[in-house]
Amino acid sequence: MLVQGTHYRTIWTGGDPFRGDLFIIDQTALPHAFRIARLHTLEEACEAISGMLVRGAGLIGAAAAHGFWLAALQAPDQGFHGFMEEASAALRATRPTAVNLEWALERQKKRIAGLGRQQAVPAAFAEACAIADEDADCCRRIGQNGLPLLRRAAQAHPGRPVEVLTHCNAGWLAFVDHGSALAPVYAAFDEGLPIHVWVDETRPRGQGAALTSWELLQHGVPHDIIADNAGGHLMQRGMVDMVITGADRVARNGDAANKIGTYLKALAAADNHVPFYVALPSSTFDFGIRDGMLGIPIEERSPEEVLFASGALDPGRTARVLLGPPGATARNWAFDVTPARLITGFITERGVCAATEEGIASMYPEALDAGAREQRHA
Amino acid sequence: MLVQGTHYRTIWTGGDPFRGDLFIIDQTALPHAFRIARLHTLEEACEAISGMLVRGAGLIGAAAAHGFWLAALQAPDQGFHGFMEEASAALRATRPTAVNLEWALERQKKRIAGLGRQQAVPAAFAEACAIADEDADCCRRIGQNGLPLLRRAAQAHPGRPVEVLTHCNAGWLAFVDHGSALAPVYAAFDEGLPIHVWVDETRPRGQGAALTSWELLQHGVPHDIIADNAGGHLMQRGMVDMVITGADRVARNGDAANKIGTYLKALAAADNHVPFYVALPSSTFDFGIRDGMLGIPIEERSPEEVLFASGALDPGRTARVLLGPPGATARNWAFDVTPARLITGFITERGVCAATEEGIASMYPEALDAGAREQRHA
Repeated sequence: MLVQGTHYRTIWTGGDPFRGDLFIIDQTALPHAFRIARLHTLEEACEAISGMLVRGAGLIGAAAAHGFWLAALQAPDQGFHGFMEEASAALRATRPTAVNLEWALERQKKRIAGLGRQQAVPAAFAEACAIADEDADCCRRIGQNGLPLLRRAAQAHPGRPVEVLTHCNAGWLAFVDHGSALAPVYAAFDEGLPIHVWVDETRPRGQGAALTSWELLQHGVPHDIIADNAGGHLMQRGMVDMVITGADRVARNGDAANKIGTYLKALAAADNHVPFYVALPSSTFDFGIRDGMLGIPIEERSPEEVLFASGALDPGRTARVLLGPPGATARNWAFDVTPARLITGFITERGVCAATEEGIASMYPEALDAGAREQRHA
Repeated sequence: MLVQGTHYRTIWTGGDPFRGDLFIIDQTALPHAFRIARLHTLEEACEAISGMLVRGAGLIGAAAAHGFWLAALQAPDQGFHGFMEEASAALRATRPTAVNLEWALERQKKRIAGLGRQQAVPAAFAEACAIADEDADCCRRIGQNGLPLLRRAAQAHPGRPVEVLTHCNAGWLAFVDHGSALAPVYAAFDEGLPIHVWVDETRPRGQGAALTSWELLQHGVPHDIIADNAGGHLMQRGMVDMVITGADRVARNGDAANKIGTYLKALAAADNHVPFYVALPSSTFDFGIRDGMLGIPIEERSPEEVLFASGALDPGRTARVLLGPPGATARNWAFDVTPARLITGFITERGVCAATEEGIASMYPEALDAGAREQRHA
């Protein structure tokens, strides 16, 4: 997507498989500065993921795939596969909730299985690039598949913009390009549909205020930031036509883990008959988990994210301020699970389906295979 | 309640009806500094309310009553009642949602009706003091009436603290003393019940992180600040025994206006079978409004509250930081209405009642009178 008129992806390489040059947009600097970070090692890749220089389901997967390639460059010829197993475990440990991370690492491990280091390096490079390209293409198709929903909403309410509420950042910054939840929004905006986005601030890290608003401003999409507390009120007053969020992991029963607070918006949507869509690429499904509420691990992060808020003191100078009294303590779960019963449908690169085991299976026959496998093992 | 071991109320006078000395705790300085402001005029009282140096349903009422007294001191002998009508209108215009403000002003106007200025000044002083004393006493009784609910929760879950979630600040800082939602918590803590409070940060103004946490720390009550997004997750995981919030205005049908986001927590409580109580003094009921969702006005405040966060840069130095990109816009509704169907009960100074028209009427026969009046007028 565009940054000051120039097209960027969130992650890219220098182009040479044997030279460990990896570039990312440092998202911790946004929206106050646009900064590109250059990574050379597995350790730097791990830190970029755990420190959230890169974040978002799709981008975490792509970053892990590229980190795996950097690890292959660092690996010794002797004991190569043992080293890569450890590298994979280190990457996997950076964030626990997004399934894309595991999925990308599994693809990489399969790709280099049986190869020596010299063949594995270009193979891992090619696989990382393929994962990034597929992610971008997936997201573009999510946009196309979600577009008819927005067109219908526009037809239902002529004379005013379609009102979409989104939580956290599931825009192009969360993927390699285009985004998931925002992909239909960009597609609608680009074809001239009048659209306005309510952007949840998304405390504690403020990805909505910091990243979604920045993305939408760069692209010119009308929007307003609101407190996370406000969405229910807007839905009660008929000011939201549709909620679209992303997801970090979706179980076979349709339960969806996403940024903390998503569940509250889903409850409000259900209570006010507002359609609630989750947009995601296939890689975010975890068919190995039957029940999302029971099976999806939820990351707990540092209390400091809750106790402080970060932003710009003046242009060019960022700082964090303590919100509570000195000595106050906090807890900080990063995700919650929205039960499938509250989700109107999934918008994926294959199309839109109901958030039920049957709906998912109709679009993903491989989910049935995973179910059969699980039953055989039981 | 205690501040560093000394007992304070949130508002008090110098004691002389003919000398306009009014003292308040400046809540905009909390939790980073404990500062007392001295007010002398109607204009200063209006600014203290609209600028939220004082806030919270009960305290707004008490502050308006005291502001009315200050106005009487400033008023001319000729045209006294015309001046006081204008003063009352100015005080009423400071905040639109809390009914206590109107209620206190009506009491004052009735009190001085037919009096000359010389008699009206001490009368208004006495009425303001009475309103403050009654508020403190009401809140103490709310604590006593809510206490059995917490005792029962403690008996139901021996061996661990009772887990209470609260939103915004409905502690003693929101009233003259004791508080509404926190009054039962203080009563329980004071009798040795193990208790722990989940304190919603309450963006955009952060009254939970700034005021509730400060209050609870001063009193020694164990608690943790959480993002507003987190409460649903905690309830899903069985980590909340009870939600208690305050209210700014409750209609005759039991619909309750309170800080924006309260509705979302009520939805999560209902979805997880967690009791959801609203604690309030009688003065917060507005029996003249039949349907809260339709009838209660909702204040929209400055977008700056959403775009920025305020806190301490270092000890003793506060600042605000811009959260979004330069140029981003925001909207900022301050309250939402929680439908009565989501409320388990009201905890009032008269006892606990169901959040239904019948439940309210059983405890407040005057609600029926208001209903009869409204029907006669219809």
